[in-house]
Amino acid sequence: MGYDGRVITEKGLEELRNALVTDRIGFIITKIESLIFKANFDVRQGKGNVIINNAVISKRHYNTALKIIRKVVSAGYAVSPLVRIFEEGEVVEGRIVPKGKVMIVTLCSITLDAILHHAGIPISPMFGGMVQILERKPLRFTDLISYSGSTLDPLEIFSAKGLSSVLKAVETGNGYVLANFREIPMTLWPRLRRSLKGLKSLV
Amino acid sequence: MGYDGRVITEKGLEELRNALVTDRIGFIITKIESLIFKANFDVRQGKGNVIINNAVISKRHYNTALKIIRKVVSAGYAVSPLVRIFEEGEVVEGRIVPKGKVMIVTLCSITLDAILHHAGIPISPMFGGMVQILERKPLRFTDLISYSGSTLDPLEIFSAKGLSSVLKAVETGNGYVLANFREIPMTLWPRLRRSLKGLKSLV
Repeated sequence: MGYDGRVITEKGLEELRNALVTDRIGFIITKIESLIFKANFDVRQGKGNVIINNAVISKRHYNTALKIIRKVVSAGYAVSPLVRIFEEGEVVEGRIVPKGKVMIVTLCSITLDAILHHAGIPISPMFGGMVQILERKPLRFTDLISYSGSTLDPLEIFSAKGLSSVLKAVETGNGYVLANFREIPMTLWPRLRRSLKGLKSLV
Repeated sequence: MGYDGRVITEKGLEELRNALVTDRIGFIITKIESLIFKANFDVRQGKGNVIINNAVISKRHYNTALKIIRKVVSAGYAVSPLVRIFEEGEVVEGRIVPKGKVMIVTLCSITLDAILHHAGIPISPMFGGMVQILERKPLRFTDLISYSGSTLDPLEIFSAKGLSSVLKAVETGNGYVLANFREIPMTLWPRLRRSLKGLKSLV
């Protein structure tokens, strides 16, 4: 190609294709488990790494978003009331917040799995799903997608499809919210209850 | 309540709730398998029940929809070129086509599983997913959702989320289409190839 540039040959393209085939399909459970193992929040000392969710939104939606978050937290539907805001230009985990945007960081519920895992309770996230709320009480799971059988995050699917109605649940006491379905060995049930009680003092 | 009406008591409501809890969660694989067992299309005689997809659309979109279907069929992305239209008021499997609408019925790819199953080849639909098309050839699965781990149809999820680009694949030869991932015992591979050859004569 002289000095004009480089091309990928047909053989190189083929190589690239084959290399990608096996890499691309990674079920979401692998990502979640590696986050669980990496987090090291210590409940007694009140410090360590937690797992977060981040949302990048337009600045002009910032006030509305914060009002909604406050409403959801007050109603008891959030894992933690802690919220952190990053302004445009700030760098979070190697990602820069774009111009005209803010990043809203909240605690991810998988942090709970991490804390319990490190406390010696083997906990497995099984399904992401939707729970029907009736008269302010969780009634039942209405839909489930397995974490070990999906390459997409089930909760992202349920949010994106517009099947949930979190705000309606918060405001009227009736609606559909996102929830995780977890599994622990049955013999550890008393120990889990004690651990969860300990966690409540943190919120 | 006198003659004014009836109310469901709290106890009755509770009963109703409990009754529904176990009924509601049915993984999609159960529905698919029951369809496979019910279909009885005989390839040699060219008759029997097949499994269908139906789409109810507004009459004013009818011509555009038909043009798109023709394009997809011609490009070889449909299971079968057979299409059947039901007008408003017609009854299909106990459902009436609403006013101002038409129902477009096409062959569902699960019919293939049914035909192979009845030919003695145990075939299991494992995942619904997305396949990347590059230069008019299927390259790789890029996302998968397990049929046995989801209460929602994976292919409906992939269509609804707008992750696929079937028309782009048809028109430019590059895009993402919906596809199923199936499993058969490896020893039946030669027999499957023979069966598929036989099916080609039908299209």
